[in-house]
Amino acid sequence: MDRSAERASLKSGTQSTARQMEVLREVYQCIQDGARSFLRAEYTICLQFVVAFAIMIVVLIGWGQGLTIGILTMISFVIGAITSMVCGYIGMYVAVFSNARTTINCMKSGYTEGFNTAFRAGAVMGFALTGLGIFVFYATMCGYSTMYEASKWNIMFDCLSGFGLGGSSIAMFGRVGGGIYTKAADVGADLVGKVIEDLPEDSPRNPATIADNVGDNVGDVAGMGADLFGSFAESTCAALLIAAQTKDLRAAGWGAICFPLIVSAAGILVCLACSFVATHFRPVTTEDKIEGALRGQLILTTLAMLPAIHAVAALYLPETWHMEGVAKSMTATRHGAVMCVASGAVGGLIIGLVTEFYTSFGYEPVKELARSCKTGAATNIIYGLALGYKSVIVPVCILATIVYVSFESCDLYGVALAAVGMLSNLATGLTIDAYGPVCDNAGGIAEMAELPHEVREKTDALDAAGNTTAAVGKGFAIGSAALVSLALYGAFVTRIRESSDGEFNNVQILTPLVFAFLLVGSMLPFWFSALTMKSVGDAAAEMVLEVKRQFDETPELRNPATQLRPDYDACIKISTQASLREMIAPGALVMLAPLITGTFFGVYAVYGLLTGALLSGVQMAISMSNTGGAWDNAKKYISGGYDESLGGKGSEFYKAAVIGDTVGDPLKDTSGPALNILMKLMAIMSLVFADYFYAINGGQGILNLPVD
Amino acid sequence: MDRSAERASLKSGTQSTARQMEVLREVYQCIQDGARSFLRAEYTICLQFVVAFAIMIVVLIGWGQGLTIGILTMISFVIGAITSMVCGYIGMYVAVFSNARTTINCMKSGYTEGFNTAFRAGAVMGFALTGLGIFVFYATMCGYSTMYEASKWNIMFDCLSGFGLGGSSIAMFGRVGGGIYTKAADVGADLVGKVIEDLPEDSPRNPATIADNVGDNVGDVAGMGADLFGSFAESTCAALLIAAQTKDLRAAGWGAICFPLIVSAAGILVCLACSFVATHFRPVTTEDKIEGALRGQLILTTLAMLPAIHAVAALYLPETWHMEGVAKSMTATRHGAVMCVASGAVGGLIIGLVTEFYTSFGYEPVKELARSCKTGAATNIIYGLALGYKSVIVPVCILATIVYVSFESCDLYGVALAAVGMLSNLATGLTIDAYGPVCDNAGGIAEMAELPHEVREKTDALDAAGNTTAAVGKGFAIGSAALVSLALYGAFVTRIRESSDGEFNNVQILTPLVFAFLLVGSMLPFWFSALTMKSVGDAAAEMVLEVKRQFDETPELRNPATQLRPDYDACIKISTQASLREMIAPGALVMLAPLITGTFFGVYAVYGLLTGALLSGVQMAISMSNTGGAWDNAKKYISGGYDESLGGKGSEFYKAAVIGDTVGDPLKDTSGPALNILMKLMAIMSLVFADYFYAINGGQGILNLPVD
Repeated sequence: MDRSAERASLKSGTQSTARQMEVLREVYQCIQDGARSFLRAEYTICLQFVVAFAIMIVVLIGWGQGLTIGILTMISFVIGAITSMVCGYIGMYVAVFSNARTTINCMKSGYTEGFNTAFRAGAVMGFALTGLGIFVFYATMCGYSTMYEASKWNIMFDCLSGFGLGGSSIAMFGRVGGGIYTKAADVGADLVGKVIEDLPEDSPRNPATIADNVGDNVGDVAGMGADLFGSFAESTCAALLIAAQTKDLRAAGWGAICFPLIVSAAGILVCLACSFVATHFRPVTTEDKIEGALRGQLILTTLAMLPAIHAVAALYLPETWHMEGVAKSMTATRHGAVMCVASGAVGGLIIGLVTEFYTSFGYEPVKELARSCKTGAATNIIYGLALGYKSVIVPVCILATIVYVSFESCDLYGVALAAVGMLSNLATGLTIDAYGPVCDNAGGIAEMAELPHEVREKTDALDAAGNTTAAVGKGFAIGSAALVSLALYGAFVTRIRESSDGEFNNVQILTPLVFAFLLVGSMLPFWFSALTMKSVGDAAAEMVLEVKRQFDETPELRNPATQLRPDYDACIKISTQASLREMIAPGALVMLAPLITGTFFGVYAVYGLLTGALLSGVQMAISMSNTGGAWDNAKKYISGGYDESLGGKGSEFYKAAVIGDTVGDPLKDTSGPALNILMKLMAIMSLVFADYFYAINGGQGILNLPVD
Repeated sequence: MDRSAERASLKSGTQSTARQMEVLREVYQCIQDGARSFLRAEYTICLQFVVAFAIMIVVLIGWGQGLTIGILTMISFVIGAITSMVCGYIGMYVAVFSNARTTINCMKSGYTEGFNTAFRAGAVMGFALTGLGIFVFYATMCGYSTMYEASKWNIMFDCLSGFGLGGSSIAMFGRVGGGIYTKAADVGADLVGKVIEDLPEDSPRNPATIADNVGDNVGDVAGMGADLFGSFAESTCAALLIAAQTKDLRAAGWGAICFPLIVSAAGILVCLACSFVATHFRPVTTEDKIEGALRGQLILTTLAMLPAIHAVAALYLPETWHMEGVAKSMTATRHGAVMCVASGAVGGLIIGLVTEFYTSFGYEPVKELARSCKTGAATNIIYGLALGYKSVIVPVCILATIVYVSFESCDLYGVALAAVGMLSNLATGLTIDAYGPVCDNAGGIAEMAELPHEVREKTDALDAAGNTTAAVGKGFAIGSAALVSLALYGAFVTRIRESSDGEFNNVQILTPLVFAFLLVGSMLPFWFSALTMKSVGDAAAEMVLEVKRQFDETPELRNPATQLRPDYDACIKISTQASLREMIAPGALVMLAPLITGTFFGVYAVYGLLTGALLSGVQMAISMSNTGGAWDNAKKYISGGYDESLGGKGSEFYKAAVIGDTVGDPLKDTSGPALNILMKLMAIMSLVFADYFYAINGGQGILNLPVD
């Protein structure tokens, strides 16, 4: 059956409720089909990658460390990759399952029902992901532990780091592929739909609109889910690996080693307990309570984590233990470890709230940005870039403080614990992240099913709050990625030090090879962003041509009262093909960069590469995400008519704001968030292949260049 | 006499040649007056700064190292600052002296006369600057050398580092102030003039047009001159300082120490000899020879430098000498030193040529960017940002190679020599840099004096070539700034090592304080760019309001045939005031950041800060400059009608390109180039205050935080 033809025959205009429900169900089905078929296509490619890479792991690591370790690493890699895919699929499934239900519940009186539906959808995803992640990881760990006695746990955790690599490499494809998909559709729909043809957003006459809605699910839900699952898996791997290399902690037993994992598990329980506050104890009854409810969840879970961390530490950690740190030998204390986790949790919250300040139109920065549209699109872009650059200041200072405090308390184990701490309320973070796209989709469905205006207004209110809190979530994601990659980098250094019997200990900045690769490393985020931005641009241009073609061939679509429906599937196909094609190059860049560097230039070059990429990557990621978020909300500020001097929707100022929003799309949803994964993935790649690197000319690489 | 009223009474339309000449002379006078009065205002502020900072130097360094050294440092600081101001003034003077002369010579037949006038103007500036710089520095050096015997030359060069600081801090104000001036006028003129009122560029009816022309002189000539003079002074300081701390080189005598200075001097002679090629041996006779002539000069001087470097080294350097490098103790060779200088010279040329590839519309990247305007301003911006990010790849790899080669050959002395090498054909670089704005102004004058169309076409052809080669010059400036700041950073480390008797030797990346400040340091270029971009945006918005006011109050200005002239002085005043007001904050940020860090957090924190700022600064500077340059030339590509499918001037695509160009203005002429100075200035600040930092709690800072 040709679905688009069937849709095209639908009657539009004033419809009976039954008819509206029928259309609603069809749109719902369309989005679901689109999302599923994209994920199927994407995962097919991912599976091929997993198979190829698994073979490479066995060969390279088998050569470097022996076949057993190679095979065990490969197995944990495959398990991590598959878990990540399952998580992404669950997220997408829940989101597309709940979008139409949210729309329907928004037709009921009050906000409570609609909010609760979307919030619970997010919660299902949040708890499923974190629960599954911990369960699978712990099961793998238990399985492996039968093969190694306590004194060899360090080797066991070497093998387990494959889990993080698997999770992260799938996350890379998910983030980049999903990001390109969603933004190609979004930018394409914006460019033609709003600027050229003056269509309202999500108009059923816009051929790219279904692709746009599908994109929200595959990019913002599945991609984000895979990303944060990756962060979770990697921070746990890094913390466990360093813990397992510490003799005193091994001696203190399984519980002491598993401390980071137990903190994460406690976090799930805390988030679970707190989630009833939003849905039951203080339900959302009016529009102005939505944002507070979401933000309240984050603050509440963070605060509730603090005593939980303390309790877990008291139960499982020894009072003090000796650590052979990278910076120095030291005596770490339980109190210090608690401080590391807590600094991560609280620091993450602050970073999130600062992000909100710069991207929500409730505050001055976005208002000023909106006013800059008065002098045209160019000043809007200039101010937006400046805003993004400025928004880096506080988060980076907080990150630096967390790094200093945790590094000083427990060396690199502390940094890993801080990352675990920042991700401890991940379940809540994911709830809020998934909540946004569900509401966004609900609004799209309401528009396409031509439901009463009030429904759309209600979903818009839910969505606006979600936009703001999504920015908070992005702040968390970036902050934790920076900590995770530093921790992984530390684990890499620790592991090389073990292998080389202390010969490779710390990394001197002022040595030729390290400094040269510091430069190269800090260039990689730029290269990567160039690839992803260009991909979105190209795919969006294709999309524009397709939409134009449809409008040209079916001029009837220009008529707002038309009953005709465009060919949605053509646009879905373009987004799918473009994203699958374009995700290869950036993915390869990230994975090959450390591998090639380590193979040819050796371990010190990799040190430089990782440091450089981390340093410039974190700045780029924050500024890109915030610039894009601010442009989006500046547009919403104008279209919402919050400032009458800006003229509202359709004015010249609004058009200038739309240009900013369009430029911001790939920044905030493709390049920016994918840089998180760049940092993490490069670090975990190096960690997994550490002994392989060391096996080549004693860590000097094939070229065997002098290091100093 | 009220000049603007007088101008307003001028007859326009078809004028007699005598009348045209009169108008031409007036415009010329206007630009000259505007530029002079701006520089006077700017230098008044700079002088206040110099006095205040000189006192601070005496106090802080006097406290750290004793009064004599404090006073000598202060004197060299003042000399450096004044030399920089003189250089900026000379540059501006020559440029405004030559612009109208170039216009007049473009009225003659053929291209030779016009080209030679502009080229010679540039050459006067280039040779005056480099000659003056070397002469003053050498004279100061000789003066100081009477007070110190050979074994104490290291202390003497400590004092001389004030020269670089003086040059660089004035360059900071020149670049930022000039950059904001020129771009406020340019962006303002573009926004109203082209987009809103559909005026041609440089129309005499645009009130901001004179300010725009003045800006070319104070920003692109005086600012660029001061910047490159600063690079020259600092690279020389760094090289001499490290040389003077090397016992063997001190023993080899004055000539061996002065090797870097002699290379620079030889460079001037080489450039002088080569300059006759462009004006006499192969004069420019047709349009298509212009770009080749300019590029040829750069290539020729670089190649001619290679034997010169070899000869100078053979004459002055010992065969081998021992160095206590930062990375290791080593035996350096004359051959190695030659390789360092040569790698800098050749690497700089390649970086320049790559920059040209990404910013000239003769190549595919800019053509593709121009085509992206077909889908609107948003895709133009997205592609432009991606282009800038991509253009970072090759230059950074080349820089990394230069760093590795030179660091490996002669430790940090080698890096300083590479910087000296890259700047060895500075006279030619400056010639070409100043050539551009002179032609740009010449075109503006031709337009305002309403000279025949052919004259404007000729100046446009001269200017187009200048634009491209200016991009090449920017590549040089950024590359050399990166090397200079690394060399200064190395000199700083060397000096702290001397003071601490080897206690502070190298810098470990993985220590808490260093890593925390690596993050903070790599954030600073973003903070700085946020300030400068915002300043340009604010000033341009003011300018737009003023221009709108004039058009609203004098609607007659909209009539192309009008005899009325707008009030240019009001616009000049806005640019002047805005730039002087807005240059304070970014300048203070750059100078206070290392000072506060060193005072409170100590030497290791400063190490982290400098490394971080260098790493992200170089990437940002390259990508910003190239993005802006590419947008500018994409616009020229469309307006020049090189691709008929793009519709030419006035089309929708052209308007999209203008938005890109406008966004690019502050990127390429304010924030991007000022980042050069950020890197250098922070490093030389640290170098000059090294012993002061070390004097606080043994280099631990007031807070006395544990380092590892």
